[in-house]
Amino acid sequence: MSDTNPIQDLTARAAELDAADELGKLRERFVLPDGVVYLDGNSLGALPAGVTDRLADVASREWGELLIRSWDESAWWTAPERVGDKVAPLLGAAPGQVVVADSTSVNLFKALVGGARLAPAGRTKLLVDASTFPTDGYIAASAARMTGLTVTPVDPAHAAGAIDGDTAVVLLNHVDYRTGRLHDLPAVTAAARAAGAIMVWDLCHSAGALPVGLDAHGVDLAVGCTYKYLNGGPGAPAYLYIAARHQREFDSPLPGWNSHTDPFALTPDYRPADDARRGRVGTPDILSMLALETALDAWDGVAMESVRAKSLALTDFFLACVAAYVPQGKVESITPAPHEQRGSQVALRTENAREVMGELISRGIIGDFRAPDVLRFGFTPLYVGFADVERAARTLGHIFG
Amino acid sequence: MSDTNPIQDLTARAAELDAADELGKLRERFVLPDGVVYLDGNSLGALPAGVTDRLADVASREWGELLIRSWDESAWWTAPERVGDKVAPLLGAAPGQVVVADSTSVNLFKALVGGARLAPAGRTKLLVDASTFPTDGYIAASAARMTGLTVTPVDPAHAAGAIDGDTAVVLLNHVDYRTGRLHDLPAVTAAARAAGAIMVWDLCHSAGALPVGLDAHGVDLAVGCTYKYLNGGPGAPAYLYIAARHQREFDSPLPGWNSHTDPFALTPDYRPADDARRGRVGTPDILSMLALETALDAWDGVAMESVRAKSLALTDFFLACVAAYVPQGKVESITPAPHEQRGSQVALRTENAREVMGELISRGIIGDFRAPDVLRFGFTPLYVGFADVERAARTLGHIFG
Repeated sequence: MSDTNPIQDLTARAAELDAADELGKLRERFVLPDGVVYLDGNSLGALPAGVTDRLADVASREWGELLIRSWDESAWWTAPERVGDKVAPLLGAAPGQVVVADSTSVNLFKALVGGARLAPAGRTKLLVDASTFPTDGYIAASAARMTGLTVTPVDPAHAAGAIDGDTAVVLLNHVDYRTGRLHDLPAVTAAARAAGAIMVWDLCHSAGALPVGLDAHGVDLAVGCTYKYLNGGPGAPAYLYIAARHQREFDSPLPGWNSHTDPFALTPDYRPADDARRGRVGTPDILSMLALETALDAWDGVAMESVRAKSLALTDFFLACVAAYVPQGKVESITPAPHEQRGSQVALRTENAREVMGELISRGIIGDFRAPDVLRFGFTPLYVGFADVERAARTLGHIFG
Repeated sequence: MSDTNPIQDLTARAAELDAADELGKLRERFVLPDGVVYLDGNSLGALPAGVTDRLADVASREWGELLIRSWDESAWWTAPERVGDKVAPLLGAAPGQVVVADSTSVNLFKALVGGARLAPAGRTKLLVDASTFPTDGYIAASAARMTGLTVTPVDPAHAAGAIDGDTAVVLLNHVDYRTGRLHDLPAVTAAARAAGAIMVWDLCHSAGALPVGLDAHGVDLAVGCTYKYLNGGPGAPAYLYIAARHQREFDSPLPGWNSHTDPFALTPDYRPADDARRGRVGTPDILSMLALETALDAWDGVAMESVRAKSLALTDFFLACVAAYVPQGKVESITPAPHEQRGSQVALRTENAREVMGELISRGIIGDFRAPDVLRFGFTPLYVGFADVERAARTLGHIFG
């Protein structure tokens, strides 16, 4: 980078990086507004092409014309497993272990109570990430109260060492929603399993941004949303992963009729399905579910390793551009610098963060604000390019300049 | 009716009834396929006009263009309460007591556990309709297990007499999904309240078909789906009613971040909202929620008393047509004859019911089959007319003729 014209240098560098980006053409798979740099796909993913047409067909033909027959003829009834199997490879999971249904919070409750019931009898502790997204902590407290466990908060960076023979269940976020810190899924999972505890991961901020490897690392249970890096739409249904080895013992606190082995027998006795359907509860939300199914087409032929490589390149480049454009001392990154500890976002602490983000948004750079002092920028490799990143950092520099 | 030509007489009678039907013009508010008589709106309501266009706008503009800003600018965040307030008058509930979210099964779990926690300490029984829709029984068993209660099955026709000082919670279906029997909501609710128990009603098969009167009868908690008589779409989100007097004490087993009094403060301590938002859990499913919101426009200016009057006229006329057209002994109605015990469906028991329903559907009469021997016909006064009813019965007669 020259000392004399950082803008010229970084703009040229962005163009080089975009030209060499093998994922760059995937942006065509999304409908994005003109003139906007969208760095909030870690909160709500952009609209994939095809979703609007699919919704029109589901509403007008499948619902309007076929009516009740669509539960069979349009394969609505089996959508939770089918869409689950479309999510599964993005999580490193073999088919038959993921169902899509309900919200992340509801799936967390199933996973934590179900996890407590899978754990060895007599254990008392539910270890929970002390810096977790709030709903995880609230739901963990309820699950603990209803299963006789005690919540023990842990620093997620030191979770592996906190797991002991009295630990029933461990719940961690794979990536911290605020700082963007990536936690060590393989090591913590191994520690939990070595201690005989059940490991539950919340993948909301990692799935679709980096390889997760649920099967490879022996994770027991996992949950996550589909509206961030998976681009499923606002409030799209979440997912629950139940490792195959646990499915016949998984004892859900929400044993709705959809989890019955023969739901339309409508029998008063509850006999749960012996597979991932055990994670289902009530009638699936078809409009949102099928929008998500089409949205996942954006992942056709995409390797998560390539996504991860581009994600790190994007966040590295953003940090370099911020260093070049923003006067020293105005912002401080709270996202870890080492790649192995970084998710796909950069969080910058600054004064008046709410006002700064408002100003960025008014200039077409959409990130978000997290109280009290954080500017949060998410980098979604399927549709964000390096020129976007340069422009975002340059605009931030102008606001402070 | 003449002895010589029942078809001519009943066809003429249907035309008279349709001509006098003040709700007949509401059919224009729906998109229905040509040539079909749809008598399964008690399972999946028909597509209301306007829903397809609304979905296109939500997807392409609110999601695609406004992106994350729509949580505020398109008022997505407050949709559960806003749509709840649009459902409320259909249930006889004042504003501020209904939230739309999650499935019926999940809302049942909230209501039963929350109900158990509202009940006087030391009580041991959870009374449940022995003939209930299965998910109610399965979820009741889980709620009982997790709150220390014991499920006691009761004949819903004699529920009021079974409630005693050891009863914590009573759960009944307002209308039986199979027989169409309407239970006595005012009397059972009064008995529960007199005994100090918490009364929970499942309104899936009554809401939108007849007046419910939640506030007038002092119901404590209620749940129901929105995809039957409310026409919200396949798997549309369900609702939870929490009577205003209980909202500050309602202790949800699913205390997700959406139920926090200040969710975006993202604080680790849980402080629930002091109103119906306490029934929310996770991020609302916006595509389905807003489709439902538009679907509810079909109720503009409709009095539930008129709906009830037409519903009874439809089922009466159907039973008369069946008596005239179907050879004696071929079918037997298991739906109660007295109006005060009848919902908005007719269930006919017959041999080979599955095959008979298949034949009806192939002739354009859509009802459904419920194992082992029931033909189920739902009568939705907003879009079913008397000529439809006559044709359905006549077709049934042909099959047996």
